[in-house]
Amino acid sequence: MDILYNVADSLRLLREKRPLIHHITNYVSINDCANITLGIGASPVMAEDIDEVQEMVSFASALVLNIGMLNPRKLEAMIVAGQQAVQKGIPIIFDPVGVGATKLRMDAAHRILTELQVTVIRGNLSEIKALLGLSSDMHGVDCLAEADNGREIAQKLSERLGCVVAITGRTDVVAYGSRVCSIYNGHALLAGITGTGCMTASLIACFCSVTNDPFIGTVASIATMGIAGELAEKRLTPNEGLGTFRVRLLDAISTMNPENLLQLIKLS
Amino acid sequence: MDILYNVADSLRLLREKRPLIHHITNYVSINDCANITLGIGASPVMAEDIDEVQEMVSFASALVLNIGMLNPRKLEAMIVAGQQAVQKGIPIIFDPVGVGATKLRMDAAHRILTELQVTVIRGNLSEIKALLGLSSDMHGVDCLAEADNGREIAQKLSERLGCVVAITGRTDVVAYGSRVCSIYNGHALLAGITGTGCMTASLIACFCSVTNDPFIGTVASIATMGIAGELAEKRLTPNEGLGTFRVRLLDAISTMNPENLLQLIKLS
Amino acid sequence: MDILYNVADSLRLLREKRPLIHHITNYVSINDCANITLGIGASPVMAEDIDEVQEMVSFASALVLNIGMLNPRKLEAMIVAGQQAVQKGIPIIFDPVGVGATKLRMDAAHRILTELQVTVIRGNLSEIKALLGLSSDMHGVDCLAEADNGREIAQKLSERLGCVVAITGRTDVVAYGSRVCSIYNGHALLAGITGTGCMTASLIACFCSVTNDPFIGTVASIATMGIAGELAEKRLTPNEGLGTFRVRLLDAISTMNPENLLQLIKLS
Repeated sequence: MDILYNVADSLRLLREKRPLIHHITNYVSINDCANITLGIGASPVMAEDIDEVQEMVSFASALVLNIGMLNPRKLEAMIVAGQQAVQKGIPIIFDPVGVGATKLRMDAAHRILTELQVTVIRGNLSEIKALLGLSSDMHGVDCLAEADNGREIAQKLSERLGCVVAITGRTDVVAYGSRVCSIYNGHALLAGITGTGCMTASLIACFCSVTNDPFIGTVASIATMGIAGELAEKRLTPNEGLGTFRVRLLDAISTMNPENLLQLIKLS
Repeated sequence: MDILYNVADSLRLLREKRPLIHHITNYVSINDCANITLGIGASPVMAEDIDEVQEMVSFASALVLNIGMLNPRKLEAMIVAGQQAVQKGIPIIFDPVGVGATKLRMDAAHRILTELQVTVIRGNLSEIKALLGLSSDMHGVDCLAEADNGREIAQKLSERLGCVVAITGRTDVVAYGSRVCSIYNGHALLAGITGTGCMTASLIACFCSVTNDPFIGTVASIATMGIAGELAEKRLTPNEGLGTFRVRLLDAISTMNPENLLQLIKLS
Repeated sequence: MDILYNVADSLRLLREKRPLIHHITNYVSINDCANITLGIGASPVMAEDIDEVQEMVSFASALVLNIGMLNPRKLEAMIVAGQQAVQKGIPIIFDPVGVGATKLRMDAAHRILTELQVTVIRGNLSEIKALLGLSSDMHGVDCLAEADNGREIAQKLSERLGCVVAITGRTDVVAYGSRVCSIYNGHALLAGITGTGCMTASLIACFCSVTNDPFIGTVASIATMGIAGELAEKRLTPNEGLGTFRVRLLDAISTMNPENLLQLIKLS
């Protein structure tokens, strides 16, 4: 299948190009995001002061905006960084962490989606639902009962915002206009460690920075994370738990190759 | 013993209820605190901006206030978050990191203890001594020579502030009014990795969110951390050091069950 | 050789004295820096608010200033902390992360090097080159073509600023006035995890806090990190990758002893 070849090829390209991935993100998973970015074969940078983000983004090949642990200063820096990314034509990955929970985050999401053209949004089902409600307000339409499952919700939001929308969870869904894909990789233990969503957004940025097709880049990233989770779990022995799983997850990311990605990916 | 049954039962409850634990904490151990919260079976959230903490705490079942890497903005957010926690009736766990060392932290502790009714204070001996001195000033009494060992110091502070006081160290002590308990679990390697105190505070929040008795919740948490340290150390092979110990610690937390807690706990 | 004996002796002293090492640093590697500081046998503290850094540094035996994720508030705190360190006579280790990339960092480096007498600068080749350019501007001299390899560049900057200059990379170089030394330890995997540069700066602070000779302290630290990387890599099995490497790195640091340091160090 063409999509599978492209997925595997994007990993090959990523390892070859070592793109620089700029993050403005929360401090819970910032170290994990840096390590997974390095692990997959790219380079991370995490500047967040408004006085330097424009310059720093000018060296980058993709930008991650993650609103976990947000504050007003960081939001301003995200907008400036995002404007530079748009001008430079590099992908922006938006991770709307906890977006439904507080007004600060809803307002931040509104500003980001109004002022920037993001390339990919990755969230869990409730976050993407919150954005769908927000986009209904933005576009003056009613979102009630307009979608009732992940695929429909992702497609609706994708159409409305003109970007890739990924919902990660038990089953992952990626939608981009008329294209939609479900990914069946992953393991329940991934929900037992912090930052797997944030790390997935880092991977999306890595992959999307080396492919012109953000749908393929997003599918490749989410499959890579899911497969890494499966491999990490498989190697656990009794007495080993979430500590070892975390270590093995980064092991699996850093030893992933296009062949096992192709072999283990489960799409429909 | 009743206390042992209650300790084991609180772990059972915790795993069943998956409470949401809000943290405002330092950035050194924030990732470790999130992972131990997930590891024991709860969910962490780490918002800290004054504009969103009230809303976020309204979803939570306990609140951790940790004054490591404090700044004035964060202190204001702690007060707002704490007021919401008090109003909601959820436990507040106060971790007075480095409280004796600087005026900023002494003033912060004074404000927290004056403006909020905290449920549990967990510190090392010198931090709890510093708070006893502070509380003497607050209450206009002399603290000199009023207590000369951990049990007495913890009891004195507990009486004065009307909350559980835990001193963690070589031997751990938990006091609440007339109830006092020493815990003999743990391993010296726990002092060799950063954030074990902070992680213990996270565990206290987890356990106290599911039991009405914060004395039991605190004893259960400290015993859990100590036992996890013992198990983690036991599995070390030669050549393995603090890196592997950290991994095994989270392994032991995530695979801990009420039975081995009951079997390994050492109290008096 | 005298230098080897002194290197091994500084590790012995460090384990004995357990110095307190103050850091003002970025949030990507802050946890790793705390753990490596503990791992080698010292104690970390990470306060960064301008209202408390002076007091906190007064307890410390060395100060690390790292300009990753810099912001103006943190820079002010660095200056205040640095002034206290200078007054107290404890070593200041300056890690000019990403210094060539943005005006904010160039200005910060200029202020730090103008207002403080730092003891050791540790950077990669491009960072040290950027500082050499900066120092040329500061001293009104032309830096073009004045140095064309690591040893010369390090020596030139060392002479100009009167401090130890270390360039870490494939081969590490340490220069201090007329003394210069290349270190051939290390492994390529060290570049695959985040924060190894920052952690090396923490080690330099640890070692320099217990020796009067910052050249020796810096050589000892960089050799320790390199040797730990070699040992960590040697123990990897197939399927293990960067996750396990990180764990083994901290294992190797925490189990390092003067004897294997002496045995494995490669200098010229």
